[in-house]
Amino acid sequence: MRAVMMYGPGDVRIDDVDPPTLTRPTDAIIRVTDTCICGSDLWPYRGFNTGSTPARMGHEYLGVVEQVGDAVTDVAVGDHVVGSFVASDNTCEICQAGYQSRCRHQVMMGGIGTQAEQALIPWADGTLVKIPAERTPAQNASLLAASDVLGTGWFAAVAAEAGPGKTVAVVGDGAVGLLGVLAARELGAERIIAMSRHADRQELARRFGATDVVAERGAEGVARVKEMTGGYGAHSVIEAVGTDEAMQQAIDSTRPGGHIGFVGVSHDVHLDGAKLFGATVHLHGGPAPVRRFLPQLVESIMQDEIDPGIVFDLALPLDEAAEGYRAMDQRTATKVRLTF
Amino acid sequence: MRAVMMYGPGDVRIDDVDPPTLTRPTDAIIRVTDTCICGSDLWPYRGFNTGSTPARMGHEYLGVVEQVGDAVTDVAVGDHVVGSFVASDNTCEICQAGYQSRCRHQVMMGGIGTQAEQALIPWADGTLVKIPAERTPAQNASLLAASDVLGTGWFAAVAAEAGPGKTVAVVGDGAVGLLGVLAARELGAERIIAMSRHADRQELARRFGATDVVAERGAEGVARVKEMTGGYGAHSVIEAVGTDEAMQQAIDSTRPGGHIGFVGVSHDVHLDGAKLFGATVHLHGGPAPVRRFLPQLVESIMQDEIDPGIVFDLALPLDEAAEGYRAMDQRTATKVRLTF
Repeated sequence: MRAVMMYGPGDVRIDDVDPPTLTRPTDAIIRVTDTCICGSDLWPYRGFNTGSTPARMGHEYLGVVEQVGDAVTDVAVGDHVVGSFVASDNTCEICQAGYQSRCRHQVMMGGIGTQAEQALIPWADGTLVKIPAERTPAQNASLLAASDVLGTGWFAAVAAEAGPGKTVAVVGDGAVGLLGVLAARELGAERIIAMSRHADRQELARRFGATDVVAERGAEGVARVKEMTGGYGAHSVIEAVGTDEAMQQAIDSTRPGGHIGFVGVSHDVHLDGAKLFGATVHLHGGPAPVRRFLPQLVESIMQDEIDPGIVFDLALPLDEAAEGYRAMDQRTATKVRLTF
Repeated sequence: MRAVMMYGPGDVRIDDVDPPTLTRPTDAIIRVTDTCICGSDLWPYRGFNTGSTPARMGHEYLGVVEQVGDAVTDVAVGDHVVGSFVASDNTCEICQAGYQSRCRHQVMMGGIGTQAEQALIPWADGTLVKIPAERTPAQNASLLAASDVLGTGWFAAVAAEAGPGKTVAVVGDGAVGLLGVLAARELGAERIIAMSRHADRQELARRFGATDVVAERGAEGVARVKEMTGGYGAHSVIEAVGTDEAMQQAIDSTRPGGHIGFVGVSHDVHLDGAKLFGATVHLHGGPAPVRRFLPQLVESIMQDEIDPGIVFDLALPLDEAAEGYRAMDQRTATKVRLTF
């Protein structure tokens, strides 16, 4: 089968690889019908976090179940499904508490690679959520967004305790930040400040519910947010970048007692304990337990209540994945779908 | 009036200083009836955080109101009162949200110094909570504890979301950690693991409600907590030390999705963003908004429901404050009261 492989920074190719085989009775194999490129895929593309190469890529997916192991009972061959970037049993204490991304038996789907024609899904019963076979193209795109960027933005907004009466600031205007805006709106936030310098992303942020846009960054961005909040800072801040600058900006923009939801994969972020002590904020984040939110997100999408799929602004055949990586790296696209 | 002064590391003296005078209409002046030495007073005593010297010391107090400014309406001359280590207006948005320690008009009482015969109390209406004039010696000691160490331990337990069904680990066996144990018990925690190597403090921890004691520290301490929690880690962890080792131990002892309440004043604590991202815990702490909890703590103490005052294991006349600092520094006393 064809699969996207990263040979090194900037070097993405399509290889013909062995198709997956069931290894455990709890596994399933899906035919991938939809996949996409994630902002986090750009880290190795840019030379960070490079493991052994060539590496399989991708962790977002919709698919149709093709095979199931003997112990799989909740999904069957032919079911249409969505899953998140972490396979989880959904039964351990951590999963039951809503942290499936840290399941005792977690398997990172990025190591398996869903930018491919087929994919092994460990813990199929725990990982997969059924979706209707009949869906509009817009619903389809939105379900694919739910697999990671929507689910991650949603977790960030929940972690930041976005809700009625709250002012929410969103640091980061990638797909996750933009969908954090959408989530904050859905959670009832009163005011949503999108931090963005790019006109196209500012526009999308407004479409998703941003009430204000702040183009300034760093200390100037912080000063603007404070100005807009009576000097106190935002109640809730979403950090969706992963750099030290973004994290410091998030902390500085939050009022004492406020909440930060951070979901940008951390790179060279260093927090000074004394600063954090003085800030008196709530800090929560990490790999988003998207699985917690998937059932409700699938429901909202199929009811056409939310349209996260519009973050995809480029679709390319799988064979042209390299062009997709390039477009996201150079910011000529926000989020790229790969089609089959 | 007599006041404790720190002239430099290890150099504590009693000086005769000018008594306070009202400077704003919202001020009060109290005659200090009870004060004590805080673990955080040991930082400058040990040569950390030394500001200009000689410095006034102390931020814990019970007292009787002697003078009030024209704008003070809620306390009157002759009232017996308790306050916390931060004076706060109790009306700004931050105070109203329960973060009086970060009040827009906050004044740190440590800069004023309550290890003295009298003390100026800024924002008297917001800062002071009335206590009965009639109280037993045990109640009196407990009310003095409420001024900081109980209130801080309580905040830590609330920040760590200690409650029914939860396993709470407490890092730090000073007065704050020990009263964090008491708070966790009062909040209904199922299991409370006190981390302590000192027999006398272990005993006090058990008296306050610890169900288990772990003497190991660092990685070994973490391993013990994991062993006791099915490999997952504690739901709630209180960090009441302020060192990097203690904070790392707290993070490592917490299960994914769990909560850390950190109240040890941070010294050389450095958090790696990638580690924190991977941990997926909730982190909340800082200077405790003791004022939030004071009314309920006064009530519980006057009903003899809790007895935090037993953390005081040495009482000395104000003139012997230097001996009190020495005893706490050398750990021959957990918490020292200064009497008048």
